[in-house]
Amino acid sequence: MSALLDSIHSPKDLRNLPRQQLQSLADELRAFLLDSVSQTGGHLSSNLGTVELSVALHYVYNTPEDRIVWDVGHQTYPHKILTGRRDRMGSLRQLGGLSGFPRRDESEYDTFGTAHSSTSISAAMGMAIAARQKGDDRYSIAVIGDGAMTAGMAFEALNNAGVEEDIRLLVILNDNDMSISPPVGALNRYLAQLMSGQFYAAAKNVGKSVLKNAPPLLSLAKRLEQQAKGMVVPATLFEKFGFNYIGPIDGHDLESLIPTLENIKHLKGPQFLHVVTRKGQGYKLAEADPIAYHGPGKFDPSIGLQKPATPPKTTFTQVFGQWLCDMAAADERLVGITPAMREGSGMVEFHHRFPKRYYDVGIAEQHAVTFAGGLACEGLKPVVAIYSTFLQRAYDQLVHDVALQNLPVVFALDRAGLVGADGATHAGNYDIAFTRCIPNMSVACPADEAECRQLLTAAYRQNHPVTVRYPRGAGVGTVPASTLEDLPFGKGEMRRKGQRIALLAFGTLLYPALEAAEQLDATVVNMRWAKPLDHALLEEVARSHDALVTIEDGCIMGGAGSAVLEYLQAHGITCPVLQLGFPDVFIEHGDPVKLLQLQGLDAPGIAASVQRRFPDLLPAAVFERAS
Amino acid sequence: MSALLDSIHSPKDLRNLPRQQLQSLADELRAFLLDSVSQTGGHLSSNLGTVELSVALHYVYNTPEDRIVWDVGHQTYPHKILTGRRDRMGSLRQLGGLSGFPRRDESEYDTFGTAHSSTSISAAMGMAIAARQKGDDRYSIAVIGDGAMTAGMAFEALNNAGVEEDIRLLVILNDNDMSISPPVGALNRYLAQLMSGQFYAAAKNVGKSVLKNAPPLLSLAKRLEQQAKGMVVPATLFEKFGFNYIGPIDGHDLESLIPTLENIKHLKGPQFLHVVTRKGQGYKLAEADPIAYHGPGKFDPSIGLQKPATPPKTTFTQVFGQWLCDMAAADERLVGITPAMREGSGMVEFHHRFPKRYYDVGIAEQHAVTFAGGLACEGLKPVVAIYSTFLQRAYDQLVHDVALQNLPVVFALDRAGLVGADGATHAGNYDIAFTRCIPNMSVACPADEAECRQLLTAAYRQNHPVTVRYPRGAGVGTVPASTLEDLPFGKGEMRRKGQRIALLAFGTLLYPALEAAEQLDATVVNMRWAKPLDHALLEEVARSHDALVTIEDGCIMGGAGSAVLEYLQAHGITCPVLQLGFPDVFIEHGDPVKLLQLQGLDAPGIAASVQRRFPDLLPAAVFERAS
Repeated sequence: MSALLDSIHSPKDLRNLPRQQLQSLADELRAFLLDSVSQTGGHLSSNLGTVELSVALHYVYNTPEDRIVWDVGHQTYPHKILTGRRDRMGSLRQLGGLSGFPRRDESEYDTFGTAHSSTSISAAMGMAIAARQKGDDRYSIAVIGDGAMTAGMAFEALNNAGVEEDIRLLVILNDNDMSISPPVGALNRYLAQLMSGQFYAAAKNVGKSVLKNAPPLLSLAKRLEQQAKGMVVPATLFEKFGFNYIGPIDGHDLESLIPTLENIKHLKGPQFLHVVTRKGQGYKLAEADPIAYHGPGKFDPSIGLQKPATPPKTTFTQVFGQWLCDMAAADERLVGITPAMREGSGMVEFHHRFPKRYYDVGIAEQHAVTFAGGLACEGLKPVVAIYSTFLQRAYDQLVHDVALQNLPVVFALDRAGLVGADGATHAGNYDIAFTRCIPNMSVACPADEAECRQLLTAAYRQNHPVTVRYPRGAGVGTVPASTLEDLPFGKGEMRRKGQRIALLAFGTLLYPALEAAEQLDATVVNMRWAKPLDHALLEEVARSHDALVTIEDGCIMGGAGSAVLEYLQAHGITCPVLQLGFPDVFIEHGDPVKLLQLQGLDAPGIAASVQRRFPDLLPAAVFERAS
Repeated sequence: MSALLDSIHSPKDLRNLPRQQLQSLADELRAFLLDSVSQTGGHLSSNLGTVELSVALHYVYNTPEDRIVWDVGHQTYPHKILTGRRDRMGSLRQLGGLSGFPRRDESEYDTFGTAHSSTSISAAMGMAIAARQKGDDRYSIAVIGDGAMTAGMAFEALNNAGVEEDIRLLVILNDNDMSISPPVGALNRYLAQLMSGQFYAAAKNVGKSVLKNAPPLLSLAKRLEQQAKGMVVPATLFEKFGFNYIGPIDGHDLESLIPTLENIKHLKGPQFLHVVTRKGQGYKLAEADPIAYHGPGKFDPSIGLQKPATPPKTTFTQVFGQWLCDMAAADERLVGITPAMREGSGMVEFHHRFPKRYYDVGIAEQHAVTFAGGLACEGLKPVVAIYSTFLQRAYDQLVHDVALQNLPVVFALDRAGLVGADGATHAGNYDIAFTRCIPNMSVACPADEAECRQLLTAAYRQNHPVTVRYPRGAGVGTVPASTLEDLPFGKGEMRRKGQRIALLAFGTLLYPALEAAEQLDATVVNMRWAKPLDHALLEEVARSHDALVTIEDGCIMGGAGSAVLEYLQAHGITCPVLQLGFPDVFIEHGDPVKLLQLQGLDAPGIAASVQRRFPDLLPAAVFERAS
């Protein structure tokens, strides 16, 4: 079955294969990939789409000496398999196992860690400039999807790279007409036009016949190619940026890919190769529904994805999606905005029910936030649904366009805290710190599903910017009301009256805190808002207890616990406080339950930390149980 | 002299003028502007360039009902003068006076606050979409410079706006071939091509003859115009994004501007008008050297800028520029990167001496940082010179591309803390909070010029990312060494031994702290690093004093003082701490010395705060002096 693949331990082995065996290798690779991902879960459609491209790149280029930067990086499983990591694919995205993204510390073939989109051209340009400066003749290659091309930083990079006439930089546009959400925007329409009808057919011939010529004929080929292009479109967008545009070619056809890449190696200056692939290629079910197979869990490839026997728990994402529809029905001013995360942010139903108030702006977080600012100026009520980690992309817009003007924009921050299998690149650990330091911002941290809905409503009713942060997946399972009742702004609640020690929980860690409190006989406060803090409640609790413990699923440095420290000191209350949260390291991928446990943020961990820090304040029974 | 201008109290008055008087009005406006800015200081070249455009826009459009969003906004003085703020121009950029940028709370004609570049298309699109949703027929207009067009978010906005076929959105490219630094990148080259020779001439005719037709003839005019364009360039970049491209036209010729704008009002869908202006227009000295007259201080217009009689104090910017050259001479791996701030960041000499290691990437902060990441991967040593406030634009790249991979990139953060006349939009108050919460980051806060150089060297010698933050202007005037000696990583120093109270200063506020300490007989520590903290020193000081006072020129929330609180609590040291820094409000423009005083961060203010908070810990003499 895998005779060829078994023989590939590194790209060197691949490069020693006779060229006519490469398609068989690609077939084996695709079969292995499908089998492997069906057992571990992970990204599937995108990886099925890059099988031939991965084979061709490692065949033509002298990796790792030549540098490949894979944009987003969730399409690098074939690359990982070909670069000596096949045996570890069973550990993918698990604690201590292979990352689902390229990582410099995982392999010398992973030249740049990616995960957030649209970084590859900048990084590869840096590598190409460095090679030039050092006199190295290596190539630097960025492989970027059409979705990722819509982000501003890709354009910034094109704009800069295009004028560097003597660098060995190749940008490969992996055009599969689908980022995670359906394609949007003018660029995508333009790419579709490049690929359509006659032009695509003509260009295919360019790739197949003209460019197949040997290097001696290259200059002629080049001229022919340019003429061929000239007949169809006079100059592509990418040529206006200074790149030599080649394509589109069929990214599943090694007979197009390899000769084209071989010829490109001999061209000077920044090159742009437009490759057309299909997400899910070679697996009928994924081809038919690439979104469903974008990031599946485990499944049986012979059957495909099945509805689970027991319906899964309602996620925070779904709670948000339902709230958005209900609030939109109640208030026609509401506008929903997503940067290319319709599915991930739970906005499919909203899109269908309120298409005129739904804006998927593509991978364009900066624009999303300032666009929301413009809407808010005119009296509309924008809700920007954005992952915590992706809000980092629009930080300046949050500060300068929204907060400074105190505009009423709601930021629904999904994937706050640990994200599990995606790992450090997607961690939503910093948003409390980086949002609460900005004037006019408020930060809500719902503890469960019911509160999430109420706090979204509360946020929506403010006349200033508010983030509502909630984690990936489900919480404890409280059922949200169907009404649009809110919770008071900036107010927490006492959840358990205990002795001497008070646990102040921000967000979903309230529940392990409640559990730990049983053992510790501690007071528990559900703080609900990291900003503004409930000063009255905090002061009451601080004055009536011997020690406080702050608990949050975010970084300790600058987080909600630090807000508590600041308040206490500003009011002359000297009270010992233990801050629990994430330490000052990036937390790697793995099962989120296990990760929380490792960070000491499950109930036993919380109890143990409190016991270690405040042994004198605890009832004797704790020590009996612990010993 | 100003008979016409005197009669203009609002754009309504302007619209009542006979069209043939508009040029005279523009002339009066230009004269008033030159006179006014020469007395207050402020932005000059850009405003001389927008005189006719401001007149034309307010003449043709029904402001404020129609919305004008001025990108960057430092070119809005003519707009301010025409919209009822002429009498207040003498207070420009001064405490309590007019802002140098548009502000929603200053005038209903300022529809969106701008200052950071490239936000206008997103904001105007938001307004246009809101108008459509509400059934309003107002126009939304973004006026954006060619420099601002290089930022990614402008492309994100074009990409989104271009597909909205039925919005009343006009983007005016104010092409003056000069952002603050000389133009860079492929886009600029492309614009130059659009403007060159035959094409520009032909297009001028389009503007003057064809578009002058009355509305009934418009559809014909439109077709003619398209043909005219088709003969010269088949389709511009902007048409590929879905905009109807018109231009380039002469932005100083009201006879081109007004008929063109009047005709554009009748066109459907997103329109793109390419206007060519000259920075400094009408003032020979500024035309000849628009960079020098970009943001001059006070001067005599009849003489022009003069060299000051006494040479000004050396600024931190100059210290950085000199260090960069010296380090580059010593280490050929060094690469210097600026996002369009060559002058502001003190890199002119570096550019001249090391042109092959200098990269001005244009207004493209995101690309700048990830490009640096790519360079660092290949063993080069990138130094990114960036204003604190503009690092907000590249926050995700800092986190995801640099810090997560622990790449050795030095961030030289100029304009940290208060920035004076530029005001809240440019405040560098948040960087300590938003950088220190990120793992692998270090944050250095030099107290003076000599330390700035030493800490830059120290930062450069680390094998991980470091920011070195320093303020606008000069410090106390310590003279940097000419050698490349560093200071120990993460270590502070004791500067004064006092009693009971210790002042911990981060950065240049060390000096007022030292002054206040004389009065308080307090200990003073120069902390130097906000991250990592000097734990040994902090612990020693905390255990030997009754109270601590942290002092920083950054936000209190999440800042360096909070780092101190976190450390003390984590190590069970309960010690009263007073945090001095900026409160949770945006701080407006004004003289920085005065602003610091208002924030209680000069020596008397520090002493007063300490006295208020810790009256029992002070020597009796303090109270005698205070009373």
